[in-house]
Amino acid sequence: MEVLESSYKKLMDKVKNLLIFQSAVSIIHWDMETMMPPKAINIRSQQLALLSAIEHRMSTDPEIGKLLDNIMRSPHYEELGHIQKRNIYLIKKQYDEQTRLPEELVAAIAKQRAITTDVWKKAKAAKNFSMFKPELEKLLELEKKAAEILMEVKQTKTPYDALIDIFEPKMTAEAIAKVFGELKEGLVLLLRKCEASLKKPDTSILQRRVPIEIQRKIAKELAKTVEYDIESNTAGGRIDETEHPFTTGYYDDVRITTHYHENNFASSIFSVLHEAGHAIYEQNLNPEWIYQPVGTACSSGFHESQSRFVENIIGRSKEFWSYFLPKLKEITGNILSDVSLNAFVHAVNEVKPSKIRVEADEVTYCLHIIIRFNIERDLFAEKISVGELPEIWNQNYKDYLGLTIENDSEGVMQDTHWASGLFGYFPSYALGNIYSGQILVQMEKEQANWREQISRGNFSPVKSWLVNNVHRYGNLYDPADLIKKITDKELDVKPYIKYLEEKYSKLYDF
Amino acid sequence: MEVLESSYKKLMDKVKNLLIFQSAVSIIHWDMETMMPPKAINIRSQQLALLSAIEHRMSTDPEIGKLLDNIMRSPHYEELGHIQKRNIYLIKKQYDEQTRLPEELVAAIAKQRAITTDVWKKAKAAKNFSMFKPELEKLLELEKKAAEILMEVKQTKTPYDALIDIFEPKMTAEAIAKVFGELKEGLVLLLRKCEASLKKPDTSILQRRVPIEIQRKIAKELAKTVEYDIESNTAGGRIDETEHPFTTGYYDDVRITTHYHENNFASSIFSVLHEAGHAIYEQNLNPEWIYQPVGTACSSGFHESQSRFVENIIGRSKEFWSYFLPKLKEITGNILSDVSLNAFVHAVNEVKPSKIRVEADEVTYCLHIIIRFNIERDLFAEKISVGELPEIWNQNYKDYLGLTIENDSEGVMQDTHWASGLFGYFPSYALGNIYSGQILVQMEKEQANWREQISRGNFSPVKSWLVNNVHRYGNLYDPADLIKKITDKELDVKPYIKYLEEKYSKLYDF
Repeated sequence: MEVLESSYKKLMDKVKNLLIFQSAVSIIHWDMETMMPPKAINIRSQQLALLSAIEHRMSTDPEIGKLLDNIMRSPHYEELGHIQKRNIYLIKKQYDEQTRLPEELVAAIAKQRAITTDVWKKAKAAKNFSMFKPELEKLLELEKKAAEILMEVKQTKTPYDALIDIFEPKMTAEAIAKVFGELKEGLVLLLRKCEASLKKPDTSILQRRVPIEIQRKIAKELAKTVEYDIESNTAGGRIDETEHPFTTGYYDDVRITTHYHENNFASSIFSVLHEAGHAIYEQNLNPEWIYQPVGTACSSGFHESQSRFVENIIGRSKEFWSYFLPKLKEITGNILSDVSLNAFVHAVNEVKPSKIRVEADEVTYCLHIIIRFNIERDLFAEKISVGELPEIWNQNYKDYLGLTIENDSEGVMQDTHWASGLFGYFPSYALGNIYSGQILVQMEKEQANWREQISRGNFSPVKSWLVNNVHRYGNLYDPADLIKKITDKELDVKPYIKYLEEKYSKLYDF
Repeated sequence: MEVLESSYKKLMDKVKNLLIFQSAVSIIHWDMETMMPPKAINIRSQQLALLSAIEHRMSTDPEIGKLLDNIMRSPHYEELGHIQKRNIYLIKKQYDEQTRLPEELVAAIAKQRAITTDVWKKAKAAKNFSMFKPELEKLLELEKKAAEILMEVKQTKTPYDALIDIFEPKMTAEAIAKVFGELKEGLVLLLRKCEASLKKPDTSILQRRVPIEIQRKIAKELAKTVEYDIESNTAGGRIDETEHPFTTGYYDDVRITTHYHENNFASSIFSVLHEAGHAIYEQNLNPEWIYQPVGTACSSGFHESQSRFVENIIGRSKEFWSYFLPKLKEITGNILSDVSLNAFVHAVNEVKPSKIRVEADEVTYCLHIIIRFNIERDLFAEKISVGELPEIWNQNYKDYLGLTIENDSEGVMQDTHWASGLFGYFPSYALGNIYSGQILVQMEKEQANWREQISRGNFSPVKSWLVNNVHRYGNLYDPADLIKKITDKELDVKPYIKYLEEKYSKLYDF
């Protein structure tokens, strides 16, 4: 037992260093996006390449393999607690993947991702898919190779499943296809009902000019409302500005970014709420598990469930705005003084098919995701080729959303994910929404008056519930087990559809 | 020759990685001072401890020792160029020092520095030297041990000389004592003349309230004037806010900080100019030598010469303000509209003994340094003890500046240097001023009309001259050789005294 304990301790020390190192590197990345003087890009690339090489050396240290062997072969292994076993499981999974991918392949992928991202930016600006095509083809070939190796390590059915597993452990394309089928059906029906309704919101109120200085004040007030602390002497967060909002950090240092557009103040409002949802999750992981793999988030899907929960279920609810609209009116002076609560809530919940995923409403959002999932799956199954992407994309947008894509920059080239090699990530966005619906049902059982609390600006009960029922579990369970743990149910689309149905039937009178 | 070349290349690759790593760590430090949410301090300490351990491993890598041996024993060694030889010299010096200090001692010093700094803050707040004394004694003992080891490695005459050498290579306490003697004499004479003058500046104009938002605009305008770019699309710098202003960075990413006090706008003006002087030096090191030891700054004293040059020789000159005062008036609205050029220039050049070094004028500043230098030297020579510091300090302030120190917080505990273990650093401040006087004489020979250019807001000729005659040499020479190279003279106090004499005789009519 002593040998086992000492091996476990040594292993955890190594992993602790790796997690601390990664948290330092995340600051360097954050700085690059938010603060870095533009001229520094060359030095920064060198720094990141070096740090990434050091990180790779740390995470593939053969000593980790030996310690894992000692531990797993120990006659006392079964005496370990379930948290310790989970740590070992997560470390081994990560280590096996990292060490099985040949270094040359990892380097080739990193390089090709950089090239493809760069070309994507130019091709998107030029609305020219043929510029992008050859580089995406090269990248896809490399990603397929990696996926095939990972498939063996993870023993998944297909290479694409091995990629999904990176973001949503144990999830498969087959399982996703099943829930996405049901999801699509529900969403399309809802969309038709909204479109058929004669009641339409006046969204012009969202185009009223709000100076950026005032939007910054709104962002601070929103952060305060959802208890994401950026201002006190013990704050663990901050809000900065980038073109694409993101969240980064670890426990007591979790930072979000947003963008401010003078003629679209709602954009920063919902991006702040979205990122605050991510940030609150990271900040409230079990503090006893800091520097341990169990003390990290469960999955990309669960992360998205938390951001969408705060952005949509809370942040686009009538109750939230019955509290926050008067505040918003106060901060913005006379800009919104004539706007009624109902008018505002309907405006920020307009349902309308649009070409761009990140601008989509709650009803159509997942349809964008389903299109991407189907395409990814077929790409990796070699049923379709990169050259066919624009045609397939445009046909899908016609079929699902009734839209005509005018050019590939508003079509297949709109997102950075494929250019950056993030294949297998898209499903997480929709899974997050599905989880959020199930989580809502459970929360309503235990916090029946949450809507009343929110309407008084009291986010505490909701936050505490999320912390105790979602955040604190960290990475103790795979997502399928976690949703079971929280809701006592398997993954289920119905609660999300029901939530949308109830909300939008009121807004659109159906 | 091939073996030599390949060893040199390998060595330089290792050192390149070390410099890149250090530049990344400096971002983490900068973030801690400027951006970090307060709650993150524990995670940050862990990050810094880990990064510092990795840095130590990189800088003491035995492979560096082997490569140095291969190179220095090679029969072709003499065929190397002088830049290559300088790189090897600097690497060897650093490596010998790093590897000769026992790891336990390095760790003990790091720990005791943290403790002493912490206690210093509390003792300073409590005006209680006896709280500080025991920790400073412990630190001094450890620092002495290190200094004794370094004395052997560097073959200096005394342990204190070994510490001076860290900041001002090859400089000795003996040489410093000689120039400081002459410096003191000149300064005291000047001080008496200023004090005897009936012409006194009206410094109340500097206490006029200038809102911080306006001071930020002034800072930006100052940066633009001295060609420290913080705003363009190719900027290599930025200005942020910290209690104690500092400069950090490397080549294309050099950042400064300042502080804004509503009732003391001049404070941020001169701190911005001071730090910009440091920053311009770092940014204009020879770009061909990036990631090489020759491509770093020469010494702390030379760094200080550049900051003091921009802050004082340029920034407190009548010519600078004949250009900038109208701008300042414009930015501040009607706050300073009634102030004449002469009144303003005299106010920012008031000579008046003060207790706090960082607030001292040009004439008395070095007297503060000389007091500290004498005390440090005697401490390390064991002529005085830590317990005697307050008494000796207060006596010195009486003798040199005619001031009565009321308590140790405005006395011996005012600076963080000793608490942080920065023994041997103080002389660099005064050496910097001395160098700046010599550099000025040389520049005037080659840029006779610099004052006229400055009065038109054209800093380019001065900057180009400094770049070509100081910055571009990087660390190719030790400071004594560099001042010779630039001015064709040995270290000499007279030009600095002469500069002060000319300036202050005009201001004070003597």
